[in-house]
Amino acid sequence: MGTGRLEKALGHLCAGDIPVGIVQKPESIFYLTGFYPSSSAVLLLRAEPLLLLSQMDGPRLGEVRGVKAKVVEKFEGDLKRLGPKVGAEKGTVSLAFYEKYLKGKEVVDLDFLQRMRSVKDEGEVRAIKRAIRVAEGAMGEVLESVMVGGESERGLAARAEYLIKGRAEVAFEAIVASGRNSTIPHHRPTDRTVRAGDAVIVDLGARVGHYNSDMTRTHVPPTGEELYEIVLEAQEAGIKECYTGNALKNADLAVRRVLREYGYEDAFLHSTGHGVGLEVHEGPRLARDEKGRFEAGMVVTVEPGVYSKRFGVRIEDMVLVGPRPRVLSRFRK
Amino acid sequence: MGTGRLEKALGHLCAGDIPVGIVQKPESIFYLTGFYPSSSAVLLLRAEPLLLLSQMDGPRLGEVRGVKAKVVEKFEGDLKRLGPKVGAEKGTVSLAFYEKYLKGKEVVDLDFLQRMRSVKDEGEVRAIKRAIRVAEGAMGEVLESVMVGGESERGLAARAEYLIKGRAEVAFEAIVASGRNSTIPHHRPTDRTVRAGDAVIVDLGARVGHYNSDMTRTHVPPTGEELYEIVLEAQEAGIKECYTGNALKNADLAVRRVLREYGYEDAFLHSTGHGVGLEVHEGPRLARDEKGRFEAGMVVTVEPGVYSKRFGVRIEDMVLVGPRPRVLSRFRK
Repeated sequence: MGTGRLEKALGHLCAGDIPVGIVQKPESIFYLTGFYPSSSAVLLLRAEPLLLLSQMDGPRLGEVRGVKAKVVEKFEGDLKRLGPKVGAEKGTVSLAFYEKYLKGKEVVDLDFLQRMRSVKDEGEVRAIKRAIRVAEGAMGEVLESVMVGGESERGLAARAEYLIKGRAEVAFEAIVASGRNSTIPHHRPTDRTVRAGDAVIVDLGARVGHYNSDMTRTHVPPTGEELYEIVLEAQEAGIKECYTGNALKNADLAVRRVLREYGYEDAFLHSTGHGVGLEVHEGPRLARDEKGRFEAGMVVTVEPGVYSKRFGVRIEDMVLVGPRPRVLSRFRK
Repeated sequence: MGTGRLEKALGHLCAGDIPVGIVQKPESIFYLTGFYPSSSAVLLLRAEPLLLLSQMDGPRLGEVRGVKAKVVEKFEGDLKRLGPKVGAEKGTVSLAFYEKYLKGKEVVDLDFLQRMRSVKDEGEVRAIKRAIRVAEGAMGEVLESVMVGGESERGLAARAEYLIKGRAEVAFEAIVASGRNSTIPHHRPTDRTVRAGDAVIVDLGARVGHYNSDMTRTHVPPTGEELYEIVLEAQEAGIKECYTGNALKNADLAVRRVLREYGYEDAFLHSTGHGVGLEVHEGPRLARDEKGRFEAGMVVTVEPGVYSKRFGVRIEDMVLVGPRPRVLSRFRK
């Protein structure tokens, strides 16, 4: 890698007096080693790190660089030899895994991995930007069809993903939610035909070099324009807060303040945003109960949404945190 | 639902003397209640079951039938009131969740849920068959293009998914692995152009009514035909073992026996198969270390693969277990 991530992680381990960390998340393994496992794998993070691969990744063993790796039929042998204190990603380790390998040990959360991953370097920002451009291309075509109407949500979502897949990978299953369906934040596309007068939420993302993008636009009929402007105002207020050193919760609070002013806070069913990188949803959370501060290099979504009884409006862009927030998407609103 | 699944699950709870079960997997919640949450949700399985939904699913509250449901801002309130003994899906519950809500309690695995789900009723088999037909349509088109050559793995995978999405949902990201890439069981499609003489593995699936299909075909050049016949012989030997009452491991052992005969057992990098239903990979596993027996109504894949240094061959079909195994796919081999 040459990025020093493994060394930095080992520094955190050492500072926490953790002899060995168990890393299972493929995204974290890729982040630290540059190798993205295609099947279950375990990175033993310690003075001499060891990447344990399943036989499924055996043919790719030669791709691993800068870290010792071996292919094992089962992880048990190596996992059962660990000492009384280990680190683990507690949000990822299952209770079954814990009982099998970690019971009776002192387990410390490897929370520094999420913190490290939340701050992107230049190469990561470049990959994210490329993922955004691919998504914007698909968004443009889909919104044009939405305005004409006559296609099904399912058909439009399929086309969006096909367009993305021509140039990259899909970050997550595209959401196309029309009419009443737009009142559900994570609606799955149905056979419902989109009509020209519908409110339609389109939420999609691409993945380039394992890095994701995430973006939402809402097409509204004239009767929805007022609500659209309110959500846009809320988003702008939220984006303004994404600067180095500011409290993370302030973005969410700013969004809520605007929505409250117009009487829509109760119709905002989720929090303001989340980090995006190797995972579509990763740290930090932009929520009012989130601790911590914005750091330069974080990439977050700002995505207020108002879901009324009749239709919903959500606007989502990705923002690069710095002394001044920088909106990474260029797509019109 | 009227299928009595909730009642049956409560019977298992009672037999295990478990006062309350915590169900988090969306697939298990759907299985028991008929409601598929679009965001995190918790089903408290007890004499009076309660489905806890996040605000994201608030607009869908009216869709819930036959079980009490409520929308909560946080699950904490209800989870912190549980007694000293609870059931949970130990493979799904994270260590973080365990430490927050379950520490100090006796936690019993709700393993009966996977066992219940592994045996499909008629409606489930019908949905699975429809998912298979959709996948077969896409497989046919993609294999025709593979034989012609000239398209990229990525382009072919994108088309496969587009074809599936026109009629259903995609079960998982399609695999198109050509030439040397076919030696990697879970290869991600690249920009590599497929040439007419390549071995090409195509692995894809569709989802209908939340039920999945999973199928693999390999196109081989004339030099690969011998290996193809061997894998096919191994698959047929495995399929023959999928009958009611037989040990689950026997399917894997039969496959291995054939491959060993030809000197290919070491090039078989995974196990023989897995259950398919609401999840693409669910119980039972068809592996030599698996305990238990085939039951009528189980739906499993049988998918031996041989991954040589130059190319790989995998053939995968879905089988409905009964007094005689029934292959659900009709697609040519």
